Amino acid sequence: MGPLATVDFLAKLIAATPAAGDAGHAPFVAASIPQIPSRVAAILADGDSPLPALIGARDRLLAAGATLLAMPCNTAHHWYDDLARGIDVPFLHIADAATDDVATRVPAGATVGVIATGATHAIGLYSARLERAGYRVAVPVDAGDLQAVADGIAAVKRGDAAAGGRLFARVVSALERRGVAAIVLGCTEVPPGLAAAGIRPDVPWVDPTGALARACAAAWMRARAVPGREA
Amino acid sequence: MGPLATVDFLAKLIAATPAAGDAGHAPFVAASIPQIPSRVAAILADGDSPLPALIGARDRLLAAGATLLAMPCNTAHHWYDDLARGIDVPFLHIADAATDDVATRVPAGATVGVIATGATHAIGLYSARLERAGYRVAVPVDAGDLQAVADGIAAVKRGDAAAGGRLFARVVSALERRGVAAIVLGCTEVPPGLAAAGIRPDVPWVDPTGALARACAAAWMRARAVPGREA
Repeated sequence: MGPLATVDFLAKLIAATPAAGDAGHAPFVAASIPQIPSRVAAILADGDSPLPALIGARDRLLAAGATLLAMPCNTAHHWYDDLARGIDVPFLHIADAATDDVATRVPAGATVGVIATGATHAIGLYSARLERAGYRVAVPVDAGDLQAVADGIAAVKRGDAAAGGRLFARVVSALERRGVAAIVLGCTEVPPGLAAAGIRPDVPWVDPTGALARACAAAWMRARAVPGREA
Repeated sequence: MGPLATVDFLAKLIAATPAAGDAGHAPFVAASIPQIPSRVAAILADGDSPLPALIGARDRLLAAGATLLAMPCNTAHHWYDDLARGIDVPFLHIADAATDDVATRVPAGATVGVIATGATHAIGLYSARLERAGYRVAVPVDAGDLQAVADGIAAVKRGDAAAGGRLFARVVSALERRGVAAIVLGCTEVPPGLAAAGIRPDVPWVDPTGALARACAAAWMRARAVPGREA
């Protein structure tokens, strides 16, 4: 939900629509309201709820004519049910898209690592879906690794993506040493951080931002193929 | 107005607000509707007018609560007056922002090169403002250079930004040989193309997308400093 994560999502949405020119790309409206209360603080501490601000951003998009919704912030999906209720358009879920992507990479029964905020772990956003799909889940447990994730996110948010990536690399290595078959980069700051630092995990990794962008692009391309329907 | 140019603008808007965390970044709503008729074909040939689609995109942003407008497409500014008429919010002009930027780089009297679509040249978007500010203007004249600009824009729009940048490099060199003191990269596909190809002009250059983003960020930071006012 950081503004850079929004831009990262939009770039991945464009990349997900192979096109000879502008007109082959999915139209979009986007809202980035970074003054929203911290999602992490609301879940783990006693922070203000971001729900009113999330509803406000959703309603801006609906007023602007959005016919399909997506929210490139993992932790904010804690409020997904509240946001998806009572609206007339589909709302794609980032962890559903990422779990579908995991299933194309590694067989059920494998252990999948998840890098995410403490709040995302606490609400079981990925573990619930991955376990339902038949995977074992490994999350960072070492206090230093957990701190590295938090510090890396803060570094990306203050504009130093490469420094964030170097912090995330430590956590990637720790999960790899534990024998994970794949890693879900379950916070939107992680993929641009690793990319800026030039670091690629040794095992297959899933970028939920990219998975969500591809799911949106696929929905748009399907709708475009049906005259009279819009997505 | 290509979707990648929109993402380039948003990334530059974020970079223009130095911030310790999310909340220091300007909130934004964005609309990218790449199915809009070609601006170049409407000006130079007998193509459909993009004005209804531009008004539609503007009205989506106003419905979403935008309180300051900007349009990161040079050629589309041919319809700026029609779009800025009858609305209650300020609408920053990309060539004003770029001309202000030129003035901080080179003294009046200097010759400034402009790389842009044939349509942008035809409507005098930059030449009128630069001449009013006391500059001489040089534009590509060689047929091969003009073709390289058009081909480079098409390459960026189809996703091959580096190939576009290599085509633009030929035009940059031609302008430098003619002794320009600075170059305006007056089509939004040019800066990301040159960046992807790793090419930097030898003379100072002005990126109108970046200038517009900085002008938006400055307006937001000024408004934020005045309690009760929003930009």
